Amino acid sequence: MLTIYGDMISGNCLKVKYVADYLGIDYQWHHVDVVAGDAQKTDFKAINPAAQVPTVKLDDGKALSQSSAIMRYLAQGSTLIPENPWQAAKMDEWMFWEQYTHETSIAVTRFQVLFQNIAIEDRDPKLLAKGEAALELMEAHLKDNKWFVGDNLSLADIALYAYTQFAPDAGFNLDNKPNIKHWLKRVQSTLNI
Amino acid sequence: MLTIYGDMISGNCLKVKYVADYLGIDYQWHHVDVVAGDAQKTDFKAINPAAQVPTVKLDDGKALSQSSAIMRYLAQGSTLIPENPWQAAKMDEWMFWEQYTHETSIAVTRFQVLFQNIAIEDRDPKLLAKGEAALELMEAHLKDNKWFVGDNLSLADIALYAYTQFAPDAGFNLDNKPNIKHWLKRVQSTLNI
Repeated sequence: MLTIYGDMISGNCLKVKYVADYLGIDYQWHHVDVVAGDAQKTDFKAINPAAQVPTVKLDDGKALSQSSAIMRYLAQGSTLIPENPWQAAKMDEWMFWEQYTHETSIAVTRFQVLFQNIAIEDRDPKLLAKGEAALELMEAHLKDNKWFVGDNLSLADIALYAYTQFAPDAGFNLDNKPNIKHWLKRVQSTLNI
Repeated sequence: MLTIYGDMISGNCLKVKYVADYLGIDYQWHHVDVVAGDAQKTDFKAINPAAQVPTVKLDDGKALSQSSAIMRYLAQGSTLIPENPWQAAKMDEWMFWEQYTHETSIAVTRFQVLFQNIAIEDRDPKLLAKGEAALELMEAHLKDNKWFVGDNLSLADIALYAYTQFAPDAGFNLDNKPNIKHWLKRVQSTLNI
């Protein structure tokens, strides 16, 4: 059976859980306490030398890390990856953008506020501007599109959903972004979570 | 013909150039001056609202961004993407890790030193530690492996080559990392650059 090493407070870990649950993939969840620093411990680094969650381990002991790489591996052949090569490329584009621009601003600020005792008024203004711009880009895309790629839920939606749902934890305002709010409900209802 | 919008000082842009050159894909290069802020200008944002290079435009006007997504799209069906699904997943893992951990420390520090007049002694110690750890992880992997995935050059090598070659610009020392130095030469020679 697949083992998912992760922490439910991490959107990156939840992405893997959402995909596995949606596709009916059997797994056991192995809790790695991120705030306590368990990902830095020797026994976990034997599984993933990069010391990052999520990581999955297959039956044969092989390990795979990076939420997006894991999602892509688990979802191969499913409707979550468009068959059309151009649409698959646009899915990749959103997934890399999410990790480079969205996660590094919104998720990082959320982590600082929730788990590192950074006060709302002490948040990093550069990260706030970057995160707000990311949300505005999403809002503009969703003005004319129900999903990030094509006409169905794809990994791009799941990747972006994970931390967008938590953006208010970091003090980002979604009330002026009706397209994002409707899309969040659409993803949540499709994933049945 | 494919148009690549990019700046040769950017390793992310060079990745796309390396793949196109290696695969014999015809393209025109459209210079976007990153240091002058040309990626933030209205005419470029009409092509990529995320205001990031590289971006490519196809004959039919469709645009694709994110270096890794572009590489994956251009290289489909080539030897640069392993046919074996597990190896393809490990390639994805390295590519996402590069963008999240390696680029955000080594490339960012290089940019600050070369183009933002940050003195070597004023570099961000957190970024230095993160970059050094990234290089050590690569060095350890290359102890027993000629390539990052499988027995041949893949997109994982090209993605990691782009900024590792420039790590000394940022003051990172490669002289104590012989495996990386040999691998850099191997990639360079295989790409014929």
